[in-house]
Amino acid sequence: MNKVKVVVAGFRGRMGSEALRMIEKHDDLELVAGLDMDNAGQKVKDISGLPDFDATIYTDINQCLQDVQADVLIDLTTPEVGYLHTKTAIEYGVRPVVGTTGFTSEQLEELTDLAEERGVGAVIAPNFAIGAVLMMEFSKWAAKYFPDVEIIEKHHDQKLDAPSGTAVKTAELIKEERQSKQQGHPDEKETIPGARGADVDGMHIHSVRLPGLVAHQEVIFGGPGENLTIKHDSFHRESFMSGIKLSIDHVMKLDILVYGLENLLE
Amino acid sequence: MNKVKVVVAGFRGRMGSEALRMIEKHDDLELVAGLDMDNAGQKVKDISGLPDFDATIYTDINQCLQDVQADVLIDLTTPEVGYLHTKTAIEYGVRPVVGTTGFTSEQLEELTDLAEERGVGAVIAPNFAIGAVLMMEFSKWAAKYFPDVEIIEKHHDQKLDAPSGTAVKTAELIKEERQSKQQGHPDEKETIPGARGADVDGMHIHSVRLPGLVAHQEVIFGGPGENLTIKHDSFHRESFMSGIKLSIDHVMKLDILVYGLENLLE
Amino acid sequence: MNKVKVVVAGFRGRMGSEALRMIEKHDDLELVAGLDMDNAGQKVKDISGLPDFDATIYTDINQCLQDVQADVLIDLTTPEVGYLHTKTAIEYGVRPVVGTTGFTSEQLEELTDLAEERGVGAVIAPNFAIGAVLMMEFSKWAAKYFPDVEIIEKHHDQKLDAPSGTAVKTAELIKEERQSKQQGHPDEKETIPGARGADVDGMHIHSVRLPGLVAHQEVIFGGPGENLTIKHDSFHRESFMSGIKLSIDHVMKLDILVYGLENLLE
Amino acid sequence: MNKVKVVVAGFRGRMGSEALRMIEKHDDLELVAGLDMDNAGQKVKDISGLPDFDATIYTDINQCLQDVQADVLIDLTTPEVGYLHTKTAIEYGVRPVVGTTGFTSEQLEELTDLAEERGVGAVIAPNFAIGAVLMMEFSKWAAKYFPDVEIIEKHHDQKLDAPSGTAVKTAELIKEERQSKQQGHPDEKETIPGARGADVDGMHIHSVRLPGLVAHQEVIFGGPGENLTIKHDSFHRESFMSGIKLSIDHVMKLDILVYGLENLLE
Repeated sequence: MNKVKVVVAGFRGRMGSEALRMIEKHDDLELVAGLDMDNAGQKVKDISGLPDFDATIYTDINQCLQDVQADVLIDLTTPEVGYLHTKTAIEYGVRPVVGTTGFTSEQLEELTDLAEERGVGAVIAPNFAIGAVLMMEFSKWAAKYFPDVEIIEKHHDQKLDAPSGTAVKTAELIKEERQSKQQGHPDEKETIPGARGADVDGMHIHSVRLPGLVAHQEVIFGGPGENLTIKHDSFHRESFMSGIKLSIDHVMKLDILVYGLENLLE
Repeated sequence: MNKVKVVVAGFRGRMGSEALRMIEKHDDLELVAGLDMDNAGQKVKDISGLPDFDATIYTDINQCLQDVQADVLIDLTTPEVGYLHTKTAIEYGVRPVVGTTGFTSEQLEELTDLAEERGVGAVIAPNFAIGAVLMMEFSKWAAKYFPDVEIIEKHHDQKLDAPSGTAVKTAELIKEERQSKQQGHPDEKETIPGARGADVDGMHIHSVRLPGLVAHQEVIFGGPGENLTIKHDSFHRESFMSGIKLSIDHVMKLDILVYGLENLLE
Repeated sequence: MNKVKVVVAGFRGRMGSEALRMIEKHDDLELVAGLDMDNAGQKVKDISGLPDFDATIYTDINQCLQDVQADVLIDLTTPEVGYLHTKTAIEYGVRPVVGTTGFTSEQLEELTDLAEERGVGAVIAPNFAIGAVLMMEFSKWAAKYFPDVEIIEKHHDQKLDAPSGTAVKTAELIKEERQSKQQGHPDEKETIPGARGADVDGMHIHSVRLPGLVAHQEVIFGGPGENLTIKHDSFHRESFMSGIKLSIDHVMKLDILVYGLENLLE
Repeated sequence: MNKVKVVVAGFRGRMGSEALRMIEKHDDLELVAGLDMDNAGQKVKDISGLPDFDATIYTDINQCLQDVQADVLIDLTTPEVGYLHTKTAIEYGVRPVVGTTGFTSEQLEELTDLAEERGVGAVIAPNFAIGAVLMMEFSKWAAKYFPDVEIIEKHHDQKLDAPSGTAVKTAELIKEERQSKQQGHPDEKETIPGARGADVDGMHIHSVRLPGLVAHQEVIFGGPGENLTIKHDSFHRESFMSGIKLSIDHVMKLDILVYGLENLLE
């Protein structure tokens, strides 16, 4: 079996270091280089806290892709750097797998055209947690039959924004499918403001913040005599890695750019 | 075994008719009369939809308690009627078991004094669901060790007020015990108003309303690395009957008035 | 708007009487007759406890379908009677909507051929609860990505068999999709027998039985760092009615027999 | 304010290193020494991965307690070593806080007598997670009113034994309080063996094992029309530290040995 040769950009970050551990666990993957803002010429294993990889660290992607034979570039950096990396990788015929919510639609369009022109597979995903992506897909589907839905998302109490991005995204996806309605009794009253949560197109979102929690969401659909609940619990950021692995497997067979993990999950 | 002789006031209502069914199921209870606004002189079994009891229906409590030998009066009427029934019952030496949140503190004081003076046991309870009462007791206790707490209550979408009375009551009980604090990150922001729920002394209450639901509440305590949750699901109003039965058992041994089921649950 | 003209067979049963209440609530449906083992010539409204319908009761389906102009036959009887009703209805060009798990594969094949031959739409479904059917569909889908799965089903303590039919059905559907595996640690040990539940192809099913419960199931998928849970709560048999309504809506546009509600839910 | 002077035995282990981080976070605690099997004379900060404490490492407890002025010994070693440490600490007038399930009843009795004789406070606890201990206390209490109870415990799939020790302990505590009964329908049948879980005095325990999970338990009580659930989620072993902190606070005011965190939680 030929191993898939992988370059990881941003490997010293939280997600990036998880990506290294994921590569370590899979026999069909091989780390051939790391891309970093620093530490050019060192080995990944020289960086304290990282797995024992012999791969060389580059700070320049062009240099990197000229020196090493790579199949896939995993990019877990910032939107600015990630955009340049993605573009460059496609030009070198290296398939990018990119985790970001930050690309503009112009950038996405440009990268999509470039990938198609070159016939190079690419995956760009705002969310690599397969469980979270399935939760959203199932919710879209259920909303066709259950127009009454509320979302409860729970996070640790260090989180600043409420509702969470995933909850808002879920509500927007549901909105595309469900017949629009204002939920609850028409005459319902909040005796204490906020009790009924945030209103998105008549749906209600509730944000719980408590120490001890990690990242959890449940989408509850109600109908006469029954409830259907889709719940996702993320206990550890390791949960993103199965989605990255799946993307690597798929990107090797693609010759276009796919946006969103849901489009790989049939 | 001597059966406990019971009069039920308000037996045609939702709660009252459940009370009849509860009496039917217990060999140690006997229905000796019904109190109603109507149907004087008829039998309970003559009313369609009720269990097959031979007991006579009265509209006047004095007449009733003179005619029949009763041990306990279960009152499931309105606060006004219930107050008069309770007072009269104590005067006749019949122990009242009353489900109401509507007595004023003056009325409660007067009834307490009267019960003590006559040495007649009495139980008045705003909530007869043992599970709900235990949920509140456990929450008070847990709040000593977990000052971070959020409450999620879920009801059918025909409910008008949010948060529910039980949720507010729970928060008030917790407030007595916990060290007061504003929960969540000091800089947290609602990007959609209401996301963080209703604020009661820094605690957050979230009210979910969906068809299919009955009456549900969970109280979630968060601490470093752990969560403790107390959850009560009321699937059917039958759930109130075990608390009424417990109250009957206790009231037979009491010679004072006890307010609140929690004071019978040690 | 032309109302859909409906005959209900088995309208005195638990499901059948719910079906009558469902028809009562929908302006686009009209009850034109009832089929019963008894009470020929009476009106539905003459039967105590049923909605106030003027429709006539028949005991003979041929007589019924000759006398009244019907579009749809809802059959909620037994497999034996249901089979004859379904066959006869198709022959009269009346579309059957049948709730049963009891038809043999020969019967299903015969009815499928007959419906196709006559160009008459028909729906036969073992389960009309849309929520339960979606739970199973989602579980099948999730199992492709999460081979580790356990099922917890909870029912009232009067239920005789464990696991429930729905739990076993869910496991079988998952089995079709997931890569087969024995879950849990290879060296795991039950210090008390039964702790790890029932084993179906390496999956584990746990059956909880408690008073107060109705019918609940959760399917929990585990992956590195995350869990995905699909939960269905049936609080009341009314939950089956939305599936029957959906089937009526679809059957009016069908010219073949469809088996299983999941094939109407796209 | 005088800081409480703490020695930690077993500080290189998983629990011990958490204890160091806990001390680091609390201004009223001071680490004065570490006890280890190795590294005598080094500083705690010399050990890679541990907080930056200047405290000296000892391998001999006598030497340690002679050299440093200590108030409390936290012992998170093995039962054998822990027993000797506890005994020695009491003899030196240093209050032990010990996390173990491994002491024999003879050892416990001997240590209890010794503590009383010397008037030295001591806390020995099989479980320091306050949430888990409260879950067990609440369960004992609820069992008086709800004799029908089932336990579901969920752990990661690397766990070898089922049911978990906490689940069995909970069942035993419930058994002391509830009126004994065989739950479920008398005629219930397992169509697949194990479906109804492990039987402890008529209660049923179900053990779920899935990747992604940490340590979770719910105790579900069922009564007519209602359910009461007590649930504990341990997401991180940090959860044990609040119980250790609470024990330190209490042990400073005790002059006897207290066994079990529940006896500090009133």
